[in-house]
Amino acid sequence: MADCVVTFQPDNKSVKVELGERILNAAVAADVFINSVCGGLGKCGKCKVQVKGDVSKRDSELLTEEEKENDFVLACESAVMGDLEVYIPEASRAAKHQILVKSKEIDLKRLTPITRKLRLTLPVPSLEDNISDFERIKRGLAEQNIENPRISASLLRNCAKALRENLWDVGATIAEVNGTNEIVNIDSKDSIKKHFGLAIDIGTTTVVVSLIDLNTGETISTKSNYNKQIVCGEDVLARINYAEEEEGGLPRLNKLIVETINFLIENLTLDDELCRRGIEYGTCKDDIIGIVAAGNTTMSHLFLSLDPQHIRLEPYIPTVSLIPTLRARDLNLEVNPEAVVYCVPCRSSYVGGDITADILASGLTKKEELSLLIDVGTNGEAVMGNKEWLVSCSCSAGPAFEGVEVQHGMRASMGAIEKIALTVLPKENGMEISVFYKTIGDIKPKGICGSGLIDLLAEMFIHGIIDKGGNINDLLSPRIRDGIEGKEFVVAWAHETSLGRDMIAHKKEDGEIVMEESEGKDIVITEADIKNIIRTKAAVYASCSVLLKSMNHTFEDLDKIYIAGGFGNYIDLKKAILLGLFPDVPLKKYDFIGNGSLGGAKLALLSKDMREEAERIYKMMTYIELSVNNMFYNEFTSALFLPHTDTNLFPTVAEQLDKNQG
Amino acid sequence: MADCVVTFQPDNKSVKVELGERILNAAVAADVFINSVCGGLGKCGKCKVQVKGDVSKRDSELLTEEEKENDFVLACESAVMGDLEVYIPEASRAAKHQILVKSKEIDLKRLTPITRKLRLTLPVPSLEDNISDFERIKRGLAEQNIENPRISASLLRNCAKALRENLWDVGATIAEVNGTNEIVNIDSKDSIKKHFGLAIDIGTTTVVVSLIDLNTGETISTKSNYNKQIVCGEDVLARINYAEEEEGGLPRLNKLIVETINFLIENLTLDDELCRRGIEYGTCKDDIIGIVAAGNTTMSHLFLSLDPQHIRLEPYIPTVSLIPTLRARDLNLEVNPEAVVYCVPCRSSYVGGDITADILASGLTKKEELSLLIDVGTNGEAVMGNKEWLVSCSCSAGPAFEGVEVQHGMRASMGAIEKIALTVLPKENGMEISVFYKTIGDIKPKGICGSGLIDLLAEMFIHGIIDKGGNINDLLSPRIRDGIEGKEFVVAWAHETSLGRDMIAHKKEDGEIVMEESEGKDIVITEADIKNIIRTKAAVYASCSVLLKSMNHTFEDLDKIYIAGGFGNYIDLKKAILLGLFPDVPLKKYDFIGNGSLGGAKLALLSKDMREEAERIYKMMTYIELSVNNMFYNEFTSALFLPHTDTNLFPTVAEQLDKNQG
Repeated sequence: MADCVVTFQPDNKSVKVELGERILNAAVAADVFINSVCGGLGKCGKCKVQVKGDVSKRDSELLTEEEKENDFVLACESAVMGDLEVYIPEASRAAKHQILVKSKEIDLKRLTPITRKLRLTLPVPSLEDNISDFERIKRGLAEQNIENPRISASLLRNCAKALRENLWDVGATIAEVNGTNEIVNIDSKDSIKKHFGLAIDIGTTTVVVSLIDLNTGETISTKSNYNKQIVCGEDVLARINYAEEEEGGLPRLNKLIVETINFLIENLTLDDELCRRGIEYGTCKDDIIGIVAAGNTTMSHLFLSLDPQHIRLEPYIPTVSLIPTLRARDLNLEVNPEAVVYCVPCRSSYVGGDITADILASGLTKKEELSLLIDVGTNGEAVMGNKEWLVSCSCSAGPAFEGVEVQHGMRASMGAIEKIALTVLPKENGMEISVFYKTIGDIKPKGICGSGLIDLLAEMFIHGIIDKGGNINDLLSPRIRDGIEGKEFVVAWAHETSLGRDMIAHKKEDGEIVMEESEGKDIVITEADIKNIIRTKAAVYASCSVLLKSMNHTFEDLDKIYIAGGFGNYIDLKKAILLGLFPDVPLKKYDFIGNGSLGGAKLALLSKDMREEAERIYKMMTYIELSVNNMFYNEFTSALFLPHTDTNLFPTVAEQLDKNQG
Repeated sequence: MADCVVTFQPDNKSVKVELGERILNAAVAADVFINSVCGGLGKCGKCKVQVKGDVSKRDSELLTEEEKENDFVLACESAVMGDLEVYIPEASRAAKHQILVKSKEIDLKRLTPITRKLRLTLPVPSLEDNISDFERIKRGLAEQNIENPRISASLLRNCAKALRENLWDVGATIAEVNGTNEIVNIDSKDSIKKHFGLAIDIGTTTVVVSLIDLNTGETISTKSNYNKQIVCGEDVLARINYAEEEEGGLPRLNKLIVETINFLIENLTLDDELCRRGIEYGTCKDDIIGIVAAGNTTMSHLFLSLDPQHIRLEPYIPTVSLIPTLRARDLNLEVNPEAVVYCVPCRSSYVGGDITADILASGLTKKEELSLLIDVGTNGEAVMGNKEWLVSCSCSAGPAFEGVEVQHGMRASMGAIEKIALTVLPKENGMEISVFYKTIGDIKPKGICGSGLIDLLAEMFIHGIIDKGGNINDLLSPRIRDGIEGKEFVVAWAHETSLGRDMIAHKKEDGEIVMEESEGKDIVITEADIKNIIRTKAAVYASCSVLLKSMNHTFEDLDKIYIAGGFGNYIDLKKAILLGLFPDVPLKKYDFIGNGSLGGAKLALLSKDMREEAERIYKMMTYIELSVNNMFYNEFTSALFLPHTDTNLFPTVAEQLDKNQG
């Protein structure tokens, strides 16, 4: 078929695609990210782009007449019919967002990485000692207490050459795979110092990969990028849906996550840091021999190319939970094809390997003290326990804190309001409400991210702008007004913002096309947004309550609360407690563990004890299914207030509110 | 590239090949076999064919002027340059030969085949019992005492579907692979009765495959064919040479043996016998789930695509001897891709899996009695021992008994003289020597096969036509004459034979081509042939002597002598002893085990005890390298007489000779 060249603006990135390819897919191929909340189903209208060239499109009611006149189309419903220039307006661009790659470092007493490199100095064969090459290798390994090793057909085919080229003095890489020793590589003895591994956090939105020196445990470099699966839907359910309903959906989702990871591997192995260490360009990929990945259960399934459809349906059964160790070649990862790939075990369909990794990173199962771990993302997961027992649950908290389902919400990326403070002063004819905010990158704001939303709601609540139920009070202020979707509060005025401000091509009457800067828009929060956020925080809090009650504990019994996930690291803890998102316990009990998924993966990569601990966590963790749990429903309903129906649960908040009212 | 159609006569088989393909390769593709002793190097001249059409050829001195005029070319040195008709004269045709597929049957007390099929009736998942599919399978297997099974990535990908399609009531196939349980298949519970395996004898010349019902142990059908590698050389050394020196030699040899086996599998699964048993056409290949192959060390290497070059060079090191169990997908076998493939272990570079299989088939390591096992082929291998110890050796006996290196020798195929008796009567002016013979197929003879050669030499010796040294005595008889290569004995006169008789196209002077039957030729045996045969028998006998002496035994100590291989089954034992090929012990001590390679493979396929026995044989068998052994040289030299320098070793022969002289 004929190829068409599609150029994306303003990035000026071009890509060759087949005639008839969807613009959304062309963007993925060009490594340009267009928003696609609904997964390319033509339902969300978030992927509007302006085209110059020939496209075949469906007429969508999500486009205004003006947009249609100006050649706007939905990227997901338009096919490339020739060379094309596509302008992605700001609102449709998936912004480069802050990715938390750091996690709490745990000191490993002893490195016992997933692969070991041993020097094998073998006697040269003679007529008296004429056993086969493979028996000779096994004899050498037995002398180092490695018995009955297995070997793949492809590696066996390489043995004779590897032994002779290296004069019987080789480096052997060994891994314990599913309880058996396997020979993973036979190479020169000099290769022993080139011993690399990857820790991978497979997020639904973002993928982070660390290149790690398995001899020293040091992280050489970390890279992250969007999960390319985003074009197939933004959350786990959309992806499952895509896998099930689209022709070739599962293979495509698998291909996209593998491409995402391979792209990051490519970047990591071209990294300056590697050159600095004197590792030859291009040789490194083959020296990557051990991989640990952590992801939620759906991401783990898609990574392994396993059908995720049963995760979505009661009784929510994944294909696999304690995942057998596989090889890079099984998964098309562009590293040494023999590399072992260990996935951190998933407990259930909705408590995945990312949570197991969080627990590893927190170290909570190594301690006597009673701990609670909370991971807030699109889903909220909570885990409680100590070294002897663990209970877990998950709730579909909703993606409010990720900026979805909130009109001017956005991810934590450039231009997002991340901190907010209000002052409210009585004034003639009403109130003077001032809003102070800080944006990521200190540029004009274009929306509000999770930490900003928490600040905003807490400030609105403490200043009496909203009531316990999240209703906006009728204060006299120009910032409080009736919008199209009901009452709203203006956070930033149009002239301050870059929201909707964009260079837009307009067709003049004579047909000439001119670029014009559009106007900014007010950034607001609506009553509906506030209710969404309250539902999310109520779900998280109720999950924790159910865990505690089911084990006959109260929040006071907790010694420690670990907050995992990128979201946690940037929020104002006091304000999160004020809203009733997190329990009202002394702040010193809180501990932020950062990207626990990546951190736990790294620990499992470097320590046999941690891999065993992951399996122990899998085995001892009980899972409470909330979707059919009456207690959860009651707790959730009680938590739909700020901070909670029962203010006794939030004594310091009650005190502060009293003080404010006084 | 353009395709050319090449048609081979007299079979009238056509094949499409690329322009420039060698005729020899085109023949393989057409499933027509042309002799090629040197492996397509243009050295043996055995692949002469007559062409009609455009070829690109090298001028060879192996062709006579007359042959060149009549468009004869060497198939190995001529490339197809357009559509072509190729006539393969009788002498260049690799005849369909008798293949011994039967082997001694050993009664297995209990079937413990390489794969087991179990019914797994699993509870349907619920919210209370919501473990993953794979954990559910593992739990079900643990109830049947199968712990910690491994699974491949591809099978894992199929689990969810297999369980649900079969309503949680499935047939699981399990194999013990390198000491660990592996799940090899998950299928409907009805599939339990369709449980098939293959026993494969990978011979250098011939490949035999049996389709076996693993539930009953019954052989359903057996098929055999030439090893397609023959075009790359007729013996093991020629193949190793080809692998080493030709561009892409090893992949090609591997491809040819895999094609040979896949072709036989195709035939087996289309077999009437399968239809009779009600197994649906086309479903069977996927039901073949366990495979055991036995071959000499080089054949095993080529089957596994392992470089065999170090087998050939001192100190003769194979890549592998105790061969790890692999999967059909690793080897491109067209059966269930998960099928386990076990190769019978090889002891050393020249005592291979075929010999280990012979030992299994003989059962000698299960008995107290002292046994000797002899396998005569291109190589001769001898093994001695009992249930507690084993010694082995091999000698390059030379392929005399396979008809190679003997002017009118041939394989045991249609038209081969297989039995001979002589009468010698004094007559005026000399002797009247009559030759009585029987050919395979009872047609006009075209050569002499191994059993015929043994009969012939024994008869010539007993009648005084040759002396102890193999020299032809100057008896006055038209059958004894001086030939081009020295003295020779006429076995059959030209008018009786079909040797060289062929329909040959001749170009007449006016250019017209006519078919004419050529004349037959005398079938003779030359003094040089006789010396070659004596060298072969001396090597075999000397090997056995060395084994006995090295363990301080004499032939009298032997309780049993097993003769393995197709050759053994057709020979006249008394005559073989008369020549000194086999030791002079009571005939009742001899036992023919037939195709022990196939028989042993079948035993290993059906019995865990036999697989363990194969490993025990590998471990307890000592190997004596004869090529550097002085004792062997002395024994060989002493055995270069009929029956032997030391006639005390052959008392019954001495007695018979005395009687004849008396």
